[in-house]
Amino acid sequence: METTQRTATIDTDLFTKMVISNWDIQISRTNKLIDALSEEELQAQVAPDRNRGLYLIGHLAAVHDGMLPLLELGDNIRPEMEAIYVKESDNPGVSQHTLAELKQYWKDVNALLAKHFASTAREEWYEKHAAVSAEDFLKEPHRNKLNIVINRTNHIAYHLGQLIFLKKK
Amino acid sequence: METTQRTATIDTDLFTKMVISNWDIQISRTNKLIDALSEEELQAQVAPDRNRGLYLIGHLAAVHDGMLPLLELGDNIRPEMEAIYVKESDNPGVSQHTLAELKQYWKDVNALLAKHFASTAREEWYEKHAAVSAEDFLKEPHRNKLNIVINRTNHIAYHLGQLIFLKKK
Repeated sequence: METTQRTATIDTDLFTKMVISNWDIQISRTNKLIDALSEEELQAQVAPDRNRGLYLIGHLAAVHDGMLPLLELGDNIRPEMEAIYVKESDNPGVSQHTLAELKQYWKDVNALLAKHFASTAREEWYEKHAAVSAEDFLKEPHRNKLNIVINRTNHIAYHLGQLIFLKKK
Repeated sequence: METTQRTATIDTDLFTKMVISNWDIQISRTNKLIDALSEEELQAQVAPDRNRGLYLIGHLAAVHDGMLPLLELGDNIRPEMEAIYVKESDNPGVSQHTLAELKQYWKDVNALLAKHFASTAREEWYEKHAAVSAEDFLKEPHRNKLNIVINRTNHIAYHLGQLIFLKKK
């Protein structure tokens, strides 16, 4: 029985590691790109009539901030950002935060998530997240907290594919 | 012991389901977008001086084709496509396949992968993939076949974030 238990434990830890390592890869690629771009480049639109780089940093940060209540890790650190960077597209008249402020927000929220991820127990990852009902979760147990991290990792990749256009070829 | 075994089994199946369902979501979003775009839109570059939509379909298909040998599921169905759509950026003089042909290639390779995924045994997902050495795999067991699917799902999302620019606002 001990052997079987150990196998189960290793498997579950391994899943978490797979998911978090892919999350870390996308965060790290995004940071590397943002650090390599100038303020002028990040103030530009990623493509004609599309979001500015700066807005996308605010968007990614606000979406990650929203993961805190979704994963039941606490309240958003800056709940006022959702209306500007998630519910609305880029509007330079509304989203007036400086690049430095948005970069700091992005850094802070990711650091906080990393801290929480490191202390989340194996079993907690398989609990339902805040946006799925107990009834739906019974039928769809894959809609758990770890799944949110997989989904949001794809979300980073989606916008990273856009931010890369700010880099001169 | 039976109970513990069953828990371990459910966890592993659940994890595969989480990974494959996120893969399916990205494939399905990409298909929906491609189907909604006209031939003219897909012939256009996603942003100034960037890859054409049609090239990105070839790129995604060729990368998915490369998953066959990587996951030890067989040879690439069209190995000649890698040189054109993976190793090189878009060059209209070289990548001369028609949109219909590239769409068919994308459809075929995804259908073949879906067939293989459905018949891959639970344990097989945790085996090493073809591009990691046995030595490295001992130290990094998360670099398994299922991890390739997580990674390639992010890859779809990355290019989907670019293909979306072909859609008129």
